[in-house]
Amino acid sequence: MKIGILGGGQLARMLALAGIPMGFRFVFYDPTEGCCAGVLGKHFKAEYSDLKQLEIFAKEVDVITYEFENVPLEAVSFVKTFCRVYPEANALEATQDRLREKNLFHSLGIPIARFRDIKSADELAEIGEDLGYPFIIKTRNGGYDGKGQYLIQSEQDLSSLPLNVNETPAIAEEKVSFSREVSIIAARAKDGDVVYYDLAENYHDKGILRMTLAIPGDPFHQKAKDYVHDLLVHMDYCGVIALELFQLGDRLLANEFAPRVHNTGHWTIEGATTSQFENHLRAILGLPLGETKNVAYSSLINLIGNLPEIKETLMIPDCNFHNYDKEPRPGRKLGHLTIKSYEPSTFEVLRGHAEKLKTN
Amino acid sequence: MKIGILGGGQLARMLALAGIPMGFRFVFYDPTEGCCAGVLGKHFKAEYSDLKQLEIFAKEVDVITYEFENVPLEAVSFVKTFCRVYPEANALEATQDRLREKNLFHSLGIPIARFRDIKSADELAEIGEDLGYPFIIKTRNGGYDGKGQYLIQSEQDLSSLPLNVNETPAIAEEKVSFSREVSIIAARAKDGDVVYYDLAENYHDKGILRMTLAIPGDPFHQKAKDYVHDLLVHMDYCGVIALELFQLGDRLLANEFAPRVHNTGHWTIEGATTSQFENHLRAILGLPLGETKNVAYSSLINLIGNLPEIKETLMIPDCNFHNYDKEPRPGRKLGHLTIKSYEPSTFEVLRGHAEKLKTN
Repeated sequence: MKIGILGGGQLARMLALAGIPMGFRFVFYDPTEGCCAGVLGKHFKAEYSDLKQLEIFAKEVDVITYEFENVPLEAVSFVKTFCRVYPEANALEATQDRLREKNLFHSLGIPIARFRDIKSADELAEIGEDLGYPFIIKTRNGGYDGKGQYLIQSEQDLSSLPLNVNETPAIAEEKVSFSREVSIIAARAKDGDVVYYDLAENYHDKGILRMTLAIPGDPFHQKAKDYVHDLLVHMDYCGVIALELFQLGDRLLANEFAPRVHNTGHWTIEGATTSQFENHLRAILGLPLGETKNVAYSSLINLIGNLPEIKETLMIPDCNFHNYDKEPRPGRKLGHLTIKSYEPSTFEVLRGHAEKLKTN
Repeated sequence: MKIGILGGGQLARMLALAGIPMGFRFVFYDPTEGCCAGVLGKHFKAEYSDLKQLEIFAKEVDVITYEFENVPLEAVSFVKTFCRVYPEANALEATQDRLREKNLFHSLGIPIARFRDIKSADELAEIGEDLGYPFIIKTRNGGYDGKGQYLIQSEQDLSSLPLNVNETPAIAEEKVSFSREVSIIAARAKDGDVVYYDLAENYHDKGILRMTLAIPGDPFHQKAKDYVHDLLVHMDYCGVIALELFQLGDRLLANEFAPRVHNTGHWTIEGATTSQFENHLRAILGLPLGETKNVAYSSLINLIGNLPEIKETLMIPDCNFHNYDKEPRPGRKLGHLTIKSYEPSTFEVLRGHAEKLKTN
């Protein structure tokens, strides 16, 4: 069985590390020289717009998936004429356009923050009146890790907005004062079976995820499961999905979803009986999904910009060191740590550490 | 960090699968075309006697280890002039010669079955008198998976022995009526730190391991730990070791040891907090050893000769399917299953299944 992945970054790398033990082989389509998944299979170095190469790639593999939601829709539609692709393009269509995504959540009755489509710059002042300050302007397409987002503190900020909303489609969104950012990761099989991981509590800094705690028995787990379930069924989805949510009081508001394995689920490699990566492969291959039990209190710490000494990390009890084998660069995700604890008290220490990130 | 492995079979493959997540790269030295570890790094296809290639290999990597104890001692001694090699050659010297191995156990006070060095065929009848029938003749060198072993039921068998003991060095060993075959896997770091896995209870058929159960709290665990500890300290060993033992009443007799990761430890991939593969790498790289806690009742089933349908195996709760990506061949180890259970009762079902193997 040969699995093709559009993208050859760390998510593709971890998918391959989950699949090779089961005897699968991997082909990575990525224009980047020396992409970090490349050591685990064949690296198909070509542009996403190169139809000739896409065709050769698609004919070489048995099934195709992708590791990032900004993979060009045209590329996905094209390879689909030669080979099965999961998750299907409808999920990509929704997630590549924030307006479409918001409308989808809304149509399914999944609560979201108030938002407005920005049709022209002339509307901005009125939108500010409507949503109240501060609010956020987000480009409809292409954003990730906080990119393409602009916090508007007051009407003055509108005149200095470094984004021409007449040219770049964007939406405006109420800035909600949430108490927690959480995410739920689920996997849906072709036969409709769905499994869910524990709710993940996420800590960001400068728009980049720093730390995730997997919370056993979180009181908001069921609500999150219900929302992601509706999304999965509506899209007749196949594979792993991540739904990010904000907690406000007793409500959860959907922020966005990712039609792929997700950074906030990396703890599942050691912390759950079946990792998100293995379950994604099981789903797209039509295999039974694996159990998602949390084997410990797990936390994930992203290693960004530079890596600590491996020796020091391995001196932490029950700590796993992940190095994506990428060139260091400021703000770049280079690896992560999974720290498991079997005592709630250790977990609370980690949570205290995570809380401090909020003040940065 | 680039790790060179002499041998590119499934043990090398699983070592690489443990090391790549930590950012290590691998080079496999193996004369076999398409060896199954090859998909995980660079395959150096050359003979173990090819000094020129061994030199190039040794100069390319930062540390060398091996996945089988029959790697030619000359090859190990040669690459050692260019690069660190762990475990060191003294362990190989002992394990490549059954006589030397028995004498080592004896000198350390580790109990073993009665044995005799066979100096010539003329002695065989007298040896039979001494050890009693049945007894076993084993070649001193090169045996594995029951190969090079001859069960001598009576004096008549001596005349039809398909082995010329005047030409092939061999020993004779009492056939002990053991109640269990067990093994202990341990890892020793360069600084002398030692960690031990739970005792493994092993079920063989036709000389090949079929099934292993990892037994939490086995009453013989401490005794096995003491024996392997003495062996490790005596050899100033670095890396993972496996010591196979027979239980007779309240005694354990050492059978043999393997200076490498071991088939009876494959359950540690999912069943222990740190796998034997990761701990072997940590040891040879001078990193702190990881914890060896058993996270569940774990069992291992070898898949020999042909593979079951992956779909069927994944329908078993908490079952992990491992496919070594090797060409099927009768008697060949092609993969394994790890089945974890959180209930002792499920474990007893598996033990009952394993017991049946004994009658085959």
